[in-house]
Amino acid sequence: MQNSVSKHLFLRAAAGEITERPPVWLMRQAGRILPQYRALRQKFPDFKAFVKTPEAASEATIQPVDELQVDAAIIFSDILVIPEAMGLDYEMIEAKGPRFPKTIRQASDVAALRSGADAAADLDYVYQALRITKRELNGRVPLIGFAGAPWTILAYMVEGGGSKTFSNARRMLYAEPELAHALLQKITDTTISYLRQQIAAGADLIQLFDSWAGELAPAHYQTFAMPYLNQICEALPETPKTIFAKGAWFALEEIGQSTCQVVGLDWNTAPGFAREKVGPNKVLQGNLDPCTLYADAPTIRQETLRMIQAFKGKHIVNLGHGVYPDTPLDGVRVFVDTVKAFKW
Amino acid sequence: MQNSVSKHLFLRAAAGEITERPPVWLMRQAGRILPQYRALRQKFPDFKAFVKTPEAASEATIQPVDELQVDAAIIFSDILVIPEAMGLDYEMIEAKGPRFPKTIRQASDVAALRSGADAAADLDYVYQALRITKRELNGRVPLIGFAGAPWTILAYMVEGGGSKTFSNARRMLYAEPELAHALLQKITDTTISYLRQQIAAGADLIQLFDSWAGELAPAHYQTFAMPYLNQICEALPETPKTIFAKGAWFALEEIGQSTCQVVGLDWNTAPGFAREKVGPNKVLQGNLDPCTLYADAPTIRQETLRMIQAFKGKHIVNLGHGVYPDTPLDGVRVFVDTVKAFKW
Repeated sequence: MQNSVSKHLFLRAAAGEITERPPVWLMRQAGRILPQYRALRQKFPDFKAFVKTPEAASEATIQPVDELQVDAAIIFSDILVIPEAMGLDYEMIEAKGPRFPKTIRQASDVAALRSGADAAADLDYVYQALRITKRELNGRVPLIGFAGAPWTILAYMVEGGGSKTFSNARRMLYAEPELAHALLQKITDTTISYLRQQIAAGADLIQLFDSWAGELAPAHYQTFAMPYLNQICEALPETPKTIFAKGAWFALEEIGQSTCQVVGLDWNTAPGFAREKVGPNKVLQGNLDPCTLYADAPTIRQETLRMIQAFKGKHIVNLGHGVYPDTPLDGVRVFVDTVKAFKW
Repeated sequence: MQNSVSKHLFLRAAAGEITERPPVWLMRQAGRILPQYRALRQKFPDFKAFVKTPEAASEATIQPVDELQVDAAIIFSDILVIPEAMGLDYEMIEAKGPRFPKTIRQASDVAALRSGADAAADLDYVYQALRITKRELNGRVPLIGFAGAPWTILAYMVEGGGSKTFSNARRMLYAEPELAHALLQKITDTTISYLRQQIAAGADLIQLFDSWAGELAPAHYQTFAMPYLNQICEALPETPKTIFAKGAWFALEEIGQSTCQVVGLDWNTAPGFAREKVGPNKVLQGNLDPCTLYADAPTIRQETLRMIQAFKGKHIVNLGHGVYPDTPLDGVRVFVDTVKAFKW
C-alpha cells in the first residue's frame, strides 16, 4: 500500500533526502508536559490500563500533534509490553518506575518464557491503537512505532526494575553468557514479530530504544547488543528504522554499519563526532539537552539554532533524551517553533 | 617532610615513571566486599557516625591493604562531608543512598552556606582519620585522599539526593548560570581548604570524583566543571592528583590539559581512545568493568591481562567504577593477584 504520508518531511528526511528544514519531534512528547495528557491520565489511575486502552493511547499519541504541530507522532505505549507478553508481568509504580515481581535468574526461567509470534499476539491492543491513530491522523504526519532494544529489555527482565548500575543484568553477560544469548534471542524473535505487526497496523518508521546501552562495555555491546539490533533491522527491510542507543558513543561505528536509516544521539555526543563515526549515509537524530528547555526563550532559540547548524543537514531535530515531565510547555513550544521557522 | 612511601610503586607510577608492573587498587575497596568491613559496620548502625569516628574510618581504610595487598589505601569517607560542612545536612538511607532534607533553590540558599577554611575546619574527623591511618600503615602503601568534584557536589546539593537525570541540577546551569557559578565557587574554595588539610594530615595523592560528569553536555562541562577542577588542581601543586570524571569521555581532551597527573577512566572508554585524547603525558587509571569480577577465575584473569596489555604502560590498574558491594571476594582476589603477578 502506498502510504499517504510517504512524501512527508519527516519520512523524506529519514530517507536521507535534502529537505528545506529538519523535521522536529520530541521523545516522550505524548506525556506529562501536556495538560490534556494529564487530564486523560486522570481517567486511568493504573498506567498499564491506560496503555492497554487503544482509544486512550491513540488520543495521547495525537495530542502533541494538535498542540505543538510536531512533524511526527509516536504511538503512546511502553517498551515493557514485550516482557509482559513473554510472560513476565510488571507493575508501574507511580513516580518510581517499573517493578517486576519475578525476574529471570536461571535457564528454566528463560525456557518458561513465550516468544515470537505467540507472545506478540498478546499485544493486539498496541496494533489497535496504531490503526485508530493512523485513521485519526488521516495523513497529517507520519506515525512512529517502537520497541525496546533486546539488551535493554533483558536488563529490565533480569534486574527487575530500574537500577543505577544494572549490575545483575551485566553479571549475567559475564557469568552466564549462553543464558544471556538465549534470552536475547527470545526477546529478539518476539520484537520482530511485534514490529512487523506494528508496521502492518500503520507504523511508518520504527525506533529502537536502547536506553541502557551506556552501561555496557564496548566489547559487550558488540557481543550482546549489536547482533540482535541487526537481526531486527534486517527483518524489517521495507520500513525505515532508527536506533537510539543512549550512552553508546563507543558503538557509533557499529551502529553506522547496521541497516538502520537514522541514528539517535544523546546530548553528550557532538554532531561532528557522531558523523565521523557513523559515516556519511545515516541521518542523525537529536540531540539538544532536555534541560535547555528550562531556560528562557532566547536561550532555547539560540541553542536550538546552534544545534541545527552543527548537524549541517541529514538531521531530524529532537532532544537527546525524552522530554522531562516538568518541562514548561512554553519552552517546548519555543523549541518546536524555532525548528519550524528555520530555513536552510 | 620527605614521605617514607615516595618510592612506592603506586606513587612512582602516578608520577609517570616506567614501573615493573602497574600498581593496583580498587575504588570502594574499603567496603562491603570485605567480611571484616561488614563486621565493623555493624557497630555503627548510622553510616555517618561510622565516617565521623576516626579510629573506625582508619580501620576500614586499612582492611583491604591487609586482606588483598592492594598497592594503595584510600581514606574511608564520603564525598558528601563537604555539603554538610558547608551547612547542608544529609541523611544516609540504607540501601537507598543520601538524602538532603533541605536543598539549594535560590541565591539566599547559596549565600547562607559557609565555605572555605571556615567550612573545612568542621572536617577535623577526616584529618584525624588520615593521621591515624598514616601512622598505622607505617609506610606499607601510600594513602589516597579524595573529594567530590564541584559539579557533582552541586548536583547533590540542588537535587537533594541521587537521580536518574539530575535535571534539577542541570536546570540551574541553564536557567540560573550565575547562581550555579556562585555555588560552584563556594564548593571549590571549601574543597581546596579541605584537600590542603588532607595533604597536611598525610594524603600522598588526591583523587577527585566527578561521579555525575556524564550527565553534562560537553559545553557545560567546559563551563561548569573544568574551571573548578582546574582551580583545585592548581591549588595543590606539590601533590599528585587524579581526576575521575565518570562518563565524561567527551571531556578527555580538556582533562588532558589540566595539571593532574592521573586520569581515571570508566569501563566504556577504550584505552587507545583515552590516550589519544589526553595525550602522552598523563597516567591512565582504570578501567575493568566491575561486573567482570562476577565471572569465573580464568575469565577474570584473561580480561585483566587483556586490559593491562591494551593500556601499554603509564597505567594504574583499577575498575572502571567502585567495586559493587556483592562482588565475590574471590573474584577481587583473582583480579589483584593477576596484576601483582604481571611483569612487563
